[in-house]
Amino acid sequence: MSRPGGKFCRFLSLLAGLLLSSNLAAQEGQIWRKVAPENLVFIGMREGEIVLELNPDFAPVTSARFRDLVREDFYRGLSFYRVIEGFVAQAGTESALPPKPDQQLPPEFERSWDAALNWTPVQTDDLYAARTGFVDGVPAARADGQIWLAHCPGAVAMARDTAPDSGSTDFYIVLGQAPRYLDRNLTIFARVIDGMEVAQRIQRGAAGDNGMITNDLARSRIGRMRLFDQLSAEERREYYVVDTNSEYFRKTLEQRRERRDAFFIQSPPAVLDVCQVPVASRAERVGISRELNPN
Amino acid sequence: MSRPGGKFCRFLSLLAGLLLSSNLAAQEGQIWRKVAPENLVFIGMREGEIVLELNPDFAPVTSARFRDLVREDFYRGLSFYRVIEGFVAQAGTESALPPKPDQQLPPEFERSWDAALNWTPVQTDDLYAARTGFVDGVPAARADGQIWLAHCPGAVAMARDTAPDSGSTDFYIVLGQAPRYLDRNLTIFARVIDGMEVAQRIQRGAAGDNGMITNDLARSRIGRMRLFDQLSAEERREYYVVDTNSEYFRKTLEQRRERRDAFFIQSPPAVLDVCQVPVASRAERVGISRELNPN
Repeated sequence: MSRPGGKFCRFLSLLAGLLLSSNLAAQEGQIWRKVAPENLVFIGMREGEIVLELNPDFAPVTSARFRDLVREDFYRGLSFYRVIEGFVAQAGTESALPPKPDQQLPPEFERSWDAALNWTPVQTDDLYAARTGFVDGVPAARADGQIWLAHCPGAVAMARDTAPDSGSTDFYIVLGQAPRYLDRNLTIFARVIDGMEVAQRIQRGAAGDNGMITNDLARSRIGRMRLFDQLSAEERREYYVVDTNSEYFRKTLEQRRERRDAFFIQSPPAVLDVCQVPVASRAERVGISRELNPN
Repeated sequence: MSRPGGKFCRFLSLLAGLLLSSNLAAQEGQIWRKVAPENLVFIGMREGEIVLELNPDFAPVTSARFRDLVREDFYRGLSFYRVIEGFVAQAGTESALPPKPDQQLPPEFERSWDAALNWTPVQTDDLYAARTGFVDGVPAARADGQIWLAHCPGAVAMARDTAPDSGSTDFYIVLGQAPRYLDRNLTIFARVIDGMEVAQRIQRGAAGDNGMITNDLARSRIGRMRLFDQLSAEERREYYVVDTNSEYFRKTLEQRRERRDAFFIQSPPAVLDVCQVPVASRAERVGISRELNPN
């Protein structure tokens, strides 16, 4: 082990920036937002567990449909059939048929800006949008009187065909450098709040095959998905995500933007990539608390 | 399997963008740059193999030192002791001691712009730099008469303490959303050209511990590292990376910037994130060719 403050220890202490450490527990009330249990989805896989927070504020119809699909065990045994390192992992039925009319999901790509939203600004004149920021822990962007969720790593969205309402069941998890050019074109309806390192272990396809894994047996498979109320009493735990509306978070954003530490020989530009700001989460079960990787 | 052109097939075909498919093989001579064998480093791990291309043009001293360390089997059995999902995986000796004077590496953080470099422009007024582009397959940025390699996923750099010349042996691989604020502050000396999906399987540490994995046995370990000339005859293969100076690559950049396909309901801004442009690579062994994931 490195000594605290020792070589290389220092390196990452600085660079990891805003990872929340245990000394923040005291201020917990001001820092953490509890995730509504009905918005939790638990994806169980051989590779581990991925936990999602649904976002009914931005994708009410898609979130409700996904919740129904999870409850009826629709995804059991389905696989991640198309997975591209540095891009996305896509799972579902892999059906070549268009969805039945009653299964089509309406586009929930963006919504009108609403001053009642909990907007925490991060950056203006980002490469892709006039403004970026967080809404209740989720990276988002704004322009033209519209607001939308951003395709950052950990975003979960519905796949679709060319028609905007052709999404139905198949979804993807953003794995790599944010493909922000997809923003406003697909419905982001959830975010990975735990187990992003599990998503990173999903079996990749070959680039030459556009990520398609033709051998079904070689794919990473969804064992099952469950909602909070489908967990047994001892499996249940509460999730907390950093409250991006808090004064604490706004201060950490400023520190991250400024980087005044002596480590920096060249001062970095005072800018922030909204997809490069960690938003920590933690789980609690019967008084047991553990901190989780941000994503 | 999806039918070609079928639902969801279409989705990723579009989105994956520039992944090179086999129909390009015919134009091979114009598309691929052969990696100099002396710049190849093979990291063997239980998780799989990661292949690096050293960059002596930008980091001559660090590349030469790294090559020496690999040749003398310095890294055998050392581990990735600090790993943060979405950020970096850091490996080496984990020494808390400053390096001996003869082991200190000089900073090779940036160099003066030189018109003789093979510069392929990607974007102006990126969030972090006046210009971004590629130099011989490697993402880079420019401003103030300087040029430097960018902290995109797959970049490999020397860790250091506060002093700019305090790097010696420990290095990190960028895993997640590009931490571009590190640009010009650390020596990027290589790039992952194969096995980025292996790097994504490296055991993560806990955010609360700043990524430090205190239990040595829980860490992902470097079995050994080898140079090309240390491989047996049947293990040797040649690597090719897309020639980012080619007319082919410049055209694909433009297509990727424009996104005129009917899939896009909202036209994305005509911009490119240099860290979000795939640069494919492939390996060949005795006439056997396979395409690899870009990163």
